[in-house]
Amino acid sequence: MANVAVLGYGTIGAGAVKVVQTNAKIIEKRAGQAINVKHILDLRDFPGDPNEDKVVHDYSVIENDEDIDVVIECMGGTEPAYTFVKKALLAGRSVATSNKELVASHGAELIQIARDHKVNFLFEASVGGGIPIIRPILTCLSAEDIEEVSGILNGTTNYMLMRMEEAGCSFEEALKEAQEKGYAELHPEADVEGYDACRKIAILTSLAIGQQVDYEDIPTEGITSITADDIKYATIMGRKIKLLGSSKIRGDKVYAMVAPFLVDEKHPLAGVTDVFNAIFVHGNMVDDTMYYGRGAGSLPTASAVIADVIDCVKHFGKNIRIYWKPEKKELSDWGEFSRRFFVRVREDVSNADIQDAFGKVDMITLGGYKEKAFVTESIREDEFKAAAEKIGELINVIRLEG
Amino acid sequence: MANVAVLGYGTIGAGAVKVVQTNAKIIEKRAGQAINVKHILDLRDFPGDPNEDKVVHDYSVIENDEDIDVVIECMGGTEPAYTFVKKALLAGRSVATSNKELVASHGAELIQIARDHKVNFLFEASVGGGIPIIRPILTCLSAEDIEEVSGILNGTTNYMLMRMEEAGCSFEEALKEAQEKGYAELHPEADVEGYDACRKIAILTSLAIGQQVDYEDIPTEGITSITADDIKYATIMGRKIKLLGSSKIRGDKVYAMVAPFLVDEKHPLAGVTDVFNAIFVHGNMVDDTMYYGRGAGSLPTASAVIADVIDCVKHFGKNIRIYWKPEKKELSDWGEFSRRFFVRVREDVSNADIQDAFGKVDMITLGGYKEKAFVTESIREDEFKAAAEKIGELINVIRLEG
Repeated sequence: MANVAVLGYGTIGAGAVKVVQTNAKIIEKRAGQAINVKHILDLRDFPGDPNEDKVVHDYSVIENDEDIDVVIECMGGTEPAYTFVKKALLAGRSVATSNKELVASHGAELIQIARDHKVNFLFEASVGGGIPIIRPILTCLSAEDIEEVSGILNGTTNYMLMRMEEAGCSFEEALKEAQEKGYAELHPEADVEGYDACRKIAILTSLAIGQQVDYEDIPTEGITSITADDIKYATIMGRKIKLLGSSKIRGDKVYAMVAPFLVDEKHPLAGVTDVFNAIFVHGNMVDDTMYYGRGAGSLPTASAVIADVIDCVKHFGKNIRIYWKPEKKELSDWGEFSRRFFVRVREDVSNADIQDAFGKVDMITLGGYKEKAFVTESIREDEFKAAAEKIGELINVIRLEG
Repeated sequence: MANVAVLGYGTIGAGAVKVVQTNAKIIEKRAGQAINVKHILDLRDFPGDPNEDKVVHDYSVIENDEDIDVVIECMGGTEPAYTFVKKALLAGRSVATSNKELVASHGAELIQIARDHKVNFLFEASVGGGIPIIRPILTCLSAEDIEEVSGILNGTTNYMLMRMEEAGCSFEEALKEAQEKGYAELHPEADVEGYDACRKIAILTSLAIGQQVDYEDIPTEGITSITADDIKYATIMGRKIKLLGSSKIRGDKVYAMVAPFLVDEKHPLAGVTDVFNAIFVHGNMVDDTMYYGRGAGSLPTASAVIADVIDCVKHFGKNIRIYWKPEKKELSDWGEFSRRFFVRVREDVSNADIQDAFGKVDMITLGGYKEKAFVTESIREDEFKAAAEKIGELINVIRLEG
């Protein structure tokens, strides 16, 4: 029997305990031994909870219990998660975590400590909730030169964009609805400003290139500037507006960004609606692949955590090699990257000026609007910005994908 | 440096050599050592091929070369692949294969032999080509009670169904087009009769339940009875016709089948077009997940084979536990499974007779056709058959999914 301790009895931690207990028989067969939740660390008490007798308030109880084989970290944030996880690894215990901040900030270091101590630090649940994506990148795609990782990495914003399209409602109305449904928090910045997606694409990019990418370096735009009108244009153009965390890898150059994109309807990410997440990975041999599922939620995320625990148990005494060098990768400047741009301008901007700046483009108009729009040819982002300055104030600009 | 031998220098085998040689630097980093193709077994010579000096005609050369660490099997069929693979495992070599017949027929036995000899028998490429699906089921979803695995497992038929929808053409015209494009063989039975999908869903189901499922036990219908008219009805109903290999798991009962299904447009499999494949997996904790990519082709499939080789190299001396009991699982009778059915009948069949047999249903008609159609409520398959007999000959019947 393998004994585990769960750090944090919140949404994910409670889900982890439920998964272990509900699917105990199947998990025992697959792990080769039973998995037992021995301790749950939380500052709170949980009177009446079936696992209340497992709750401890002091990490030292877990630290000093030699029976504990695997530590499950579901606290979120970098501290005290980082301190506790590091202690566990140094003490020869494997760790499974769902904590994207911890992995984005300290992943490379913790992987190295795990290797040095012949244990494992696994983090499948840190990106995409229940969607298998970390392990597929590390194992199934290990023969690939990965050229792109782009994902719908935040379910809240994907739900809001769907509602703006379906109901023609504003950003504010969609946000209110998402809050009422419990998808968005009262302070929704982490979702709508793209910060959540930013940490996740930093982790995925680090794994794709095998080297540390700092999330602070990734230009990040949220969906706050997207309006119902943008979505009307998107529909006319046969496109969907999606908030993507996207990295394009061109040899040694890595371009990473979080922003709303106009995604072609034929792109596999275009059909991903509601709170679902999906990650698109393009490799030089395998071509396009995509991974789809629930990117958040108690049980889906916990399922990924427990799958990691099972892998830890199957690999006792053996480190599963993860290639993630700690030296920071300097990201390349998006200014030099070429793509098409969708541009909305006031109707009094002359077509001659637009043609002067961007060459010949077709105009798109919505009936009854005092504006017009167009899509540029593929153009470097810095050249786009310079050209855009020539025609003055723009109503909105959205990048095209696919 | 790890030395590998490739058995079979056909489409996949040649792709495997190309992946190893093209992505050599990346593969070395991820595997922790370089991978070298030392021998290629094929009956033919390949004069002018850059690897012609590696070609051998006799398996004993590989068998007797103590340098060989991993054998890559891309011959297809059960013999001599089975004999060669078994010999390699017994001699303490790991094996990676793309051979669905071999895995469907002998997977459980070869996994056991590998375990007994502390080596690995891996087969990610045997289902879904380059799509990560075997390893996600075995690892990422190891905490799940898997309740459904359904996949578009054959690219040729998926392409044909897309063309029948797009161009309104017949099965025969779509087949001719697929043959001209090199997607379908001159003798296309393995694809269009569902035999290829049948072996793949047998493997996926065995892995999902951890026990041998014989492909011979799986009821298998192809797409030969699907007409352009069926697809017109599908469009009216907001559905897509897809050839699915599908297993529904209800406690101890396993229902497996290959057949064309009318898939709801909102189902994640509905949007999978062209030669792409995708596998949908539903677990009791993770809910819906899906895996998408190229299900065939030289380089995508070879990429999965080489990823397995890298995993073998990373696990030298250690068997990666795969739970697949060799005792055969008896499949349950689909007769007892309930679902909805789409039914086409001649226009002279009376609505009263239809209502008598199936209760009140809404009629669907296509302008100018001397027939009508309807969808039943959810009904057991054996009860459906009994009821259908009451109304005489049917033009076509297609099961609904989602």
